[in-house]
Amino acid sequence: MHDPVWSCIVSTGQTWTVGVTGATGYAGGEVCRLLAGHPHLRLAGVHANSSAGRRLGELQPHLLPFADLEVRPSAPEDLAGYDVVVLALPHGESAAIAAQLSQDTLVVDCGADHRLEDPAAWARWYGGEHAGAPHPGAWPYGLPELPGQREKLAGARRIAVPGCYPTSVALAMVPALAAGLVEPDVVVVAASGTSGAGKAAKPHLLGSEVMGSVSAYGVGGGHRHTPEMAQSLAAAAGEPVRISFTPTLVPMSRGILATCSAPLRSGVDAAAARDAYGRAYADEPFVHLLPEGQWPTTAQVLGANTVAVQVAVDPDAGRLVVVAAVDNLTKGTAGGAIQSANIALGLPETAGLPLVGVAP
Amino acid sequence: MHDPVWSCIVSTGQTWTVGVTGATGYAGGEVCRLLAGHPHLRLAGVHANSSAGRRLGELQPHLLPFADLEVRPSAPEDLAGYDVVVLALPHGESAAIAAQLSQDTLVVDCGADHRLEDPAAWARWYGGEHAGAPHPGAWPYGLPELPGQREKLAGARRIAVPGCYPTSVALAMVPALAAGLVEPDVVVVAASGTSGAGKAAKPHLLGSEVMGSVSAYGVGGGHRHTPEMAQSLAAAAGEPVRISFTPTLVPMSRGILATCSAPLRSGVDAAAARDAYGRAYADEPFVHLLPEGQWPTTAQVLGANTVAVQVAVDPDAGRLVVVAAVDNLTKGTAGGAIQSANIALGLPETAGLPLVGVAP
Amino acid sequence: MHDPVWSCIVSTGQTWTVGVTGATGYAGGEVCRLLAGHPHLRLAGVHANSSAGRRLGELQPHLLPFADLEVRPSAPEDLAGYDVVVLALPHGESAAIAAQLSQDTLVVDCGADHRLEDPAAWARWYGGEHAGAPHPGAWPYGLPELPGQREKLAGARRIAVPGCYPTSVALAMVPALAAGLVEPDVVVVAASGTSGAGKAAKPHLLGSEVMGSVSAYGVGGGHRHTPEMAQSLAAAAGEPVRISFTPTLVPMSRGILATCSAPLRSGVDAAAARDAYGRAYADEPFVHLLPEGQWPTTAQVLGANTVAVQVAVDPDAGRLVVVAAVDNLTKGTAGGAIQSANIALGLPETAGLPLVGVAP
Amino acid sequence: MHDPVWSCIVSTGQTWTVGVTGATGYAGGEVCRLLAGHPHLRLAGVHANSSAGRRLGELQPHLLPFADLEVRPSAPEDLAGYDVVVLALPHGESAAIAAQLSQDTLVVDCGADHRLEDPAAWARWYGGEHAGAPHPGAWPYGLPELPGQREKLAGARRIAVPGCYPTSVALAMVPALAAGLVEPDVVVVAASGTSGAGKAAKPHLLGSEVMGSVSAYGVGGGHRHTPEMAQSLAAAAGEPVRISFTPTLVPMSRGILATCSAPLRSGVDAAAARDAYGRAYADEPFVHLLPEGQWPTTAQVLGANTVAVQVAVDPDAGRLVVVAAVDNLTKGTAGGAIQSANIALGLPETAGLPLVGVAP
Repeated sequence: MHDPVWSCIVSTGQTWTVGVTGATGYAGGEVCRLLAGHPHLRLAGVHANSSAGRRLGELQPHLLPFADLEVRPSAPEDLAGYDVVVLALPHGESAAIAAQLSQDTLVVDCGADHRLEDPAAWARWYGGEHAGAPHPGAWPYGLPELPGQREKLAGARRIAVPGCYPTSVALAMVPALAAGLVEPDVVVVAASGTSGAGKAAKPHLLGSEVMGSVSAYGVGGGHRHTPEMAQSLAAAAGEPVRISFTPTLVPMSRGILATCSAPLRSGVDAAAARDAYGRAYADEPFVHLLPEGQWPTTAQVLGANTVAVQVAVDPDAGRLVVVAAVDNLTKGTAGGAIQSANIALGLPETAGLPLVGVAP
Repeated sequence: MHDPVWSCIVSTGQTWTVGVTGATGYAGGEVCRLLAGHPHLRLAGVHANSSAGRRLGELQPHLLPFADLEVRPSAPEDLAGYDVVVLALPHGESAAIAAQLSQDTLVVDCGADHRLEDPAAWARWYGGEHAGAPHPGAWPYGLPELPGQREKLAGARRIAVPGCYPTSVALAMVPALAAGLVEPDVVVVAASGTSGAGKAAKPHLLGSEVMGSVSAYGVGGGHRHTPEMAQSLAAAAGEPVRISFTPTLVPMSRGILATCSAPLRSGVDAAAARDAYGRAYADEPFVHLLPEGQWPTTAQVLGANTVAVQVAVDPDAGRLVVVAAVDNLTKGTAGGAIQSANIALGLPETAGLPLVGVAP
Repeated sequence: MHDPVWSCIVSTGQTWTVGVTGATGYAGGEVCRLLAGHPHLRLAGVHANSSAGRRLGELQPHLLPFADLEVRPSAPEDLAGYDVVVLALPHGESAAIAAQLSQDTLVVDCGADHRLEDPAAWARWYGGEHAGAPHPGAWPYGLPELPGQREKLAGARRIAVPGCYPTSVALAMVPALAAGLVEPDVVVVAASGTSGAGKAAKPHLLGSEVMGSVSAYGVGGGHRHTPEMAQSLAAAAGEPVRISFTPTLVPMSRGILATCSAPLRSGVDAAAARDAYGRAYADEPFVHLLPEGQWPTTAQVLGANTVAVQVAVDPDAGRLVVVAAVDNLTKGTAGGAIQSANIALGLPETAGLPLVGVAP
Repeated sequence: MHDPVWSCIVSTGQTWTVGVTGATGYAGGEVCRLLAGHPHLRLAGVHANSSAGRRLGELQPHLLPFADLEVRPSAPEDLAGYDVVVLALPHGESAAIAAQLSQDTLVVDCGADHRLEDPAAWARWYGGEHAGAPHPGAWPYGLPELPGQREKLAGARRIAVPGCYPTSVALAMVPALAAGLVEPDVVVVAASGTSGAGKAAKPHLLGSEVMGSVSAYGVGGGHRHTPEMAQSLAAAAGEPVRISFTPTLVPMSRGILATCSAPLRSGVDAAAARDAYGRAYADEPFVHLLPEGQWPTTAQVLGANTVAVQVAVDPDAGRLVVVAAVDNLTKGTAGGAIQSANIALGLPETAGLPLVGVAP
């Protein structure tokens, strides 16, 4: 076995140490992947309760430069001493850990515990499993492209990383709702790769089951990401927004394509729609409004922190249709986490983040 | 090379000869595949203009028992003499050929030429390429599950096979509209395998491009299947129906998953919805309303003439959501064609049609 | 829910009842799928220990016509009374059950218990888990295309269905070894779809892991199918045959492509090779030697009981190269089982077996 | 449309300008992707004859930061003025262009024109199309891991980038041949993703054809990469090496898994084999000999410049089996090109190259 290739990883100027817990899962693994290319953040330790003591390479074969790292436990005391701690844990586990970490540590939670501002929404969608648990409270929301969020993230020491579907839906629909183009009544059908369902081995997620097949799940309003979408869209619209959200599972590992639509308000035409989106994303380094006639594909953002968006007006149906593509693990989770951490730490927002998808 | 295995194909009782034109494409190939298992219909000749003179096996490697058939031209005179002629041609080519075939021949058109009843709709969506061409007229519509269609197909000698998307959407939404469960304002996002786009080699359909990627196309109302959906849904609703239709391309060869929704009318609950669908499909041999809690997958209908349907009420969004899965080439095209031909010829409706999908 | 559509399934003339145990797995499910189209064999009951009491449709969503069958236990007494019993169980479970079934019942074992003739080979490869267990004995081997096997299967009441890899390798190499074209020193690299690994949920078989990835496993001679290949090849060669076998896992659900090669004996040229294969398979209904220049694809046999074979001589390397494609679940398991059962029962060998793959 | 995000791309210290021709193909696109993350090489222009005048974004949708670059023609005069020119052209086109570029320009040829040292081999495998054309001559071979190559690349101004298959096979077998572990008689079966076949739209490369299917091609010694493998292996072995090479096409976009084997020389055991590979790759930054028991997957190197290798001894078969995984577009083409360019320019060898695959 050859030596670790730490020296290959370009780190320049000031660096912060990063500990990742849940490093053996898909979100945690993606954080590690991105850190391997980050000039200022250095992966200093990996943690995961169930696999503590094993080599990371057994569990994440692609993390070849980090293969010999030993996975350590993930109790709060194990996570002390890092400049940055990334929590890539199932919802419900982050809050207790985070409460015991230093206020000087930048804590980035890829789970759902600190996303919802409304205690009632939290109790309805997440509280049941933690009967009697208090609302863990909302942290600055790690979607800098939303109005006002970049300012809240600057200097923050706690960041709630958005869910992958909410990232795609918010980036698709916020400009339309903020500009008053549509009624607050949104229909979303989103196609997701299977990595969004995580690494736990379940029969319906076997390759034999998912290859060659598309399926719907959580139909009829049951997906936990719905209230998070509603929160972002309502903030943009200035009023409550109804959302019909149907996720579907498609035969690929990564990527979300969110197809969103809403009834057009009178007088809104294609030019107005395009103008609203053009203005919203003119200065965003990661969000690309495609040229007219080109439609998003998940391949074009695979492994990158980028978002591809396109908008159309359907006069016969009287609806605005917006399609957004993100990689659920990159911009939808780990990339968004690092983007927000960059802002929090005063680094260039794009530092260490891939700008080009791995295609074909 | 071994002898043709015609003798392996079980044909019992009376048989009809079938000629297939467009036999080198995906729809035509699927017709041939199904005929290999049909007890009463015998593939007697294959036709296709561009490949005339070649062995079928060069162009359709899976049709091993038919590999040595010579592809013949597809002018009307080449198609004379069959009991049944299946036209699997691009739209615009069927009408001229069909007009010259005997009225005693059962002509089954898998193309779009004879689907639309409204000349204005035909002119808008298809007429442009045939400027000044008259509307070819509508034929009995080969979707026997629609109210009244089975009767029209009995004894028919002309059948217009529905498009693959319209098959899935009509089967998903007709019961709701016929029962008045929803407003006539339907949003459809459908995921399709790539075979729906045909066999012509285009760069965006290369395996390298479609594997690992989902993309939208024809967004904003541009897909030609929209008026066909509108026709079926309006007939069921008894009033015009608005449709927002967004097709997406997913990384698999076959299958359509149509996710459809519409605003609930007041007082409609889950039980009423389930009851309407249960009654609509109680006696249908191919359409399966799944048990509560089970959602359609395209894998479960792959290669079969079956349809899997599920329905949900989303009270927060105020919408009925219906998901239907079909194989675009089987129930969505070639299987539907044979099902309708069975009816027209007085055969058992299920004769020769696979009842079980090829899964996993 | 609609009524079972038993009536849709064409059964003509004499019928035999079939019970399938292990019906909730991939091999057992494929047996059920094929029985749905068999004119003489009727699926009369499904069994599986771990899921007894559940509806089959919960576990095998594609078996729509059989969805309401209740899964029953699989002890020997539960399997009494059928004309035919198909055992689709993990190796080591069949022998004990089979020993208690009537000698008049046709027992078809899709597992490995009765394949190996040599007790020492059985003890080395399978005996370890059953320390001290006696060799269960070899049954007639369900690969009718091998010299002499068809005769042994006629009238048999016990059939050992070959493994999927050994089916592909035997059909690829037996003609060459029987005709003395090559040295008895075979190198096989086979690509398999994931269904060959079964339905047990393991992390490395998740869709997220297998899509977009090819991997090797069991490298260096560790795969249990090796002695079974050696048995068939040695019988053809009339001497022991060395085999280097490397299986690889590829991102598809079904199919095996076996690439086999061996050193050419002197004087053997392409014409001699082609002639040997042409003669070997001239009268076989399921094995297709492709025309020169056309190479097998697994798509062309998907869901069918067919085999596509091609042979080449590489003069620079001094090797004969043979490629064979089968569907591991159809010809490689369940189809082969039914083909052999057809022979045993005196039915037409091709009865109920798909002759055309589901492509594209 | 928002502004180009050139400023996002970290470039530090001295930079070289790079022009890429064939930028609209898969190899050229991958070069552009990697340059987007390179600290010292800056993409300064894109060229391609057939698409000159179009926006790069139309043809390479994933190259979002470069979408507005105009594609320029690719005559030699169009390529003047860059510090580095990357030729990603079909074989036969590079030599004429390269001959007219300044000797001070670093020219990196991703095509085959300058790989083969033996004029006779070149004439046999490539010369036919260019009847009478002289052998273009061999350039330093861009596989620094081969003995002695790193030294030849230092300071070079002409680099021949290896083919993707030869990269995987050389890295798999050179240590064994150099150490005399095996006879010079190698059997290779390699599985490749479809991007290796390029972006030209051909029917057999359609997604509908390749998804769910594995196929062999170029069987029997016909693939042009064979003489290139022979050249590298013979140099290591110190004698001619026979190679039986069978490429297969598998349903994924990227990646090669090469399964290689050769007869063991007497006395060679697993420890000796492992030792030879361990020593060969101990100091290589990109080649990872996996721990015992772990086998390469293409997913673990997807999009990275890494190689995963594992070795086994099969005593029954008397063969050494070696499996190597590379991404055909990254380490197999564009990444290898940049790695070699880094060496030629005196940059750190790993500069700008991804060390971690995009998995899952």
